[in-house]
Amino acid sequence: MAEPPVDEFALIAELFVPLTGGHPAARGLSDDAAFLADQPGCDTVLTVDAMVAGVHFLPDDPPDLIARKLVRVNLSDLAAKGAEPVALLLAAAFPQDVTAPWLRAFAAGLGQDLATYRTVLIGGDTVATPGPLTLSLTAIGRVAAGQGLARSGASVGDDIWISGTIGDGSLGLRAARGELSALSDSDVAFLADRYRLPRPRVALGPRLIGLAGASMDVSDGLVQDLGHLCRASGVGARIEAGLVPLSDSAKRAVAAGLVTLASLLSGGDDYEVLFTASPEAAFAVAALSAELDLPLSKIGSIGAGTGVVAIGSDGQTLDPAQGGWRHFRAGS
Amino acid sequence: MAEPPVDEFALIAELFVPLTGGHPAARGLSDDAAFLADQPGCDTVLTVDAMVAGVHFLPDDPPDLIARKLVRVNLSDLAAKGAEPVALLLAAAFPQDVTAPWLRAFAAGLGQDLATYRTVLIGGDTVATPGPLTLSLTAIGRVAAGQGLARSGASVGDDIWISGTIGDGSLGLRAARGELSALSDSDVAFLADRYRLPRPRVALGPRLIGLAGASMDVSDGLVQDLGHLCRASGVGARIEAGLVPLSDSAKRAVAAGLVTLASLLSGGDDYEVLFTASPEAAFAVAALSAELDLPLSKIGSIGAGTGVVAIGSDGQTLDPAQGGWRHFRAGS
Repeated sequence: MAEPPVDEFALIAELFVPLTGGHPAARGLSDDAAFLADQPGCDTVLTVDAMVAGVHFLPDDPPDLIARKLVRVNLSDLAAKGAEPVALLLAAAFPQDVTAPWLRAFAAGLGQDLATYRTVLIGGDTVATPGPLTLSLTAIGRVAAGQGLARSGASVGDDIWISGTIGDGSLGLRAARGELSALSDSDVAFLADRYRLPRPRVALGPRLIGLAGASMDVSDGLVQDLGHLCRASGVGARIEAGLVPLSDSAKRAVAAGLVTLASLLSGGDDYEVLFTASPEAAFAVAALSAELDLPLSKIGSIGAGTGVVAIGSDGQTLDPAQGGWRHFRAGS
Repeated sequence: MAEPPVDEFALIAELFVPLTGGHPAARGLSDDAAFLADQPGCDTVLTVDAMVAGVHFLPDDPPDLIARKLVRVNLSDLAAKGAEPVALLLAAAFPQDVTAPWLRAFAAGLGQDLATYRTVLIGGDTVATPGPLTLSLTAIGRVAAGQGLARSGASVGDDIWISGTIGDGSLGLRAARGELSALSDSDVAFLADRYRLPRPRVALGPRLIGLAGASMDVSDGLVQDLGHLCRASGVGARIEAGLVPLSDSAKRAVAAGLVTLASLLSGGDDYEVLFTASPEAAFAVAALSAELDLPLSKIGSIGAGTGVVAIGSDGQTLDPAQGGWRHFRAGS
């Protein structure tokens, strides 16, 4: 049976207004704009990410997971800058045949992660599109004035650190597509979950202020993003591939010959925090790792020059071509 | 000949980085987020609008005009809230076959209007889409704390005012589609231009603080948007259709039987400011109109009750059905 036509006005009132949590800035989503009171001594931090069905997520992905990934990708950017999340604005172009149950599940996913990350929706725009579902989320955070972390703060001699594990996102996409059936069901489920539900390091980011030189989130691949960091900082980097933390599932995928280490180092969708810190800060970083119960791994160091060199376990430079490090991905 | 493949990274550096105007918040578009210093005693005002090719503009519209309309639609929201524009973030999903010349023209249009309205680009995200061009712009403005105008501020007895003229946007869409060939070429050109290039009332908006009760921009049609204002304020409205300001071109379209007055009152894309003010403020509003050289017309008054009544020149209530006032448009 065909779904009844969706009354989007009514659904917005039903589904999205509750996501404001009554925050006065949102004005009940019934005004033309949101109003956030400026905080003396603070910077407002703004980032926007766009996601298109079939490009950034699978068209058949569950709507609640699409919504949650959208939130998490943006909060990952805020976290890497040391900012605390404040609020979000959503611009959504929904396909004309979107159903009410789909929208309800999407809004439920949004609500779940707004609660998890203690933030609220304060505005947005919903339109119809003849094309694929296209979402853009503007995340607003706040940080003490002038204290926000930048890509440009790396210094020669700094250690290079990464949170969590690398490569699960790109492996997870293959797992979600059913391409990793040689792995166990639990490995496939673990990896697909990591693709669909990034873990923005919101507890870590603000704690890196005063500790990190440069910081960014890894979304386009560790080596490519480290290259961005180096360019912004005017330095070069050398990492040891054997020090890059892999999940047990990713290790098994490498051991089974399903993927090369080099390609994991350049896969996307990690959403971990890449940062540099002076060697003197190593103990403090380790203590922070223990306190947050979040692995923080030293994977290399910053040097003079330009570019990123990755050394394999055999002491040879890994071949960028093998890992597809020059592959182009629009977006950031 | 086929265009060479577009190197979007290089084009972003070439085309979008200059649009930051060197604003420090933008960090050269090379970081994960933008940083705006909070201003004590101010509110940050945020609004987002999404536009889809074939829905909100014609797919063949010149790319510079698409960009300029996107900017202007957002600045219209800020203006109606009394806010001064500060900066913009752009999320753009470009079709995979977008060409470098198209992107250059798009960026040139952005740059032209950023200069006109003295604002800058401080961030964004560009992705590829298999679907139609889909744009979303987040506009950031600033207003004195607590002074931002709301839809909810109308009081019984207030006069209802509108800036500029009404109906040119909806007529202009028809003109751009070649449906108004009964009009003169100059009327067609005038109306099409009003559809493609709204005039956000940026000089007016901030001057309405202290003068206006409620304020909003008219984008979905005067009667529909006045209904939103009434609902937010808990009041009703009565307007006299004969007092609603029309351009000479629109008057000629009505006289030629190409459109009814009722449908002009409910057409979209006006991007004028609708506001209420106490009758005592009428002289001040008139003086402001003269100072800004911008028509401000009193079109009715706020009363108790709910809903909007429009009275025709014959003293009869205009029929909403005739004007399509109940037509649904997603978005705001």
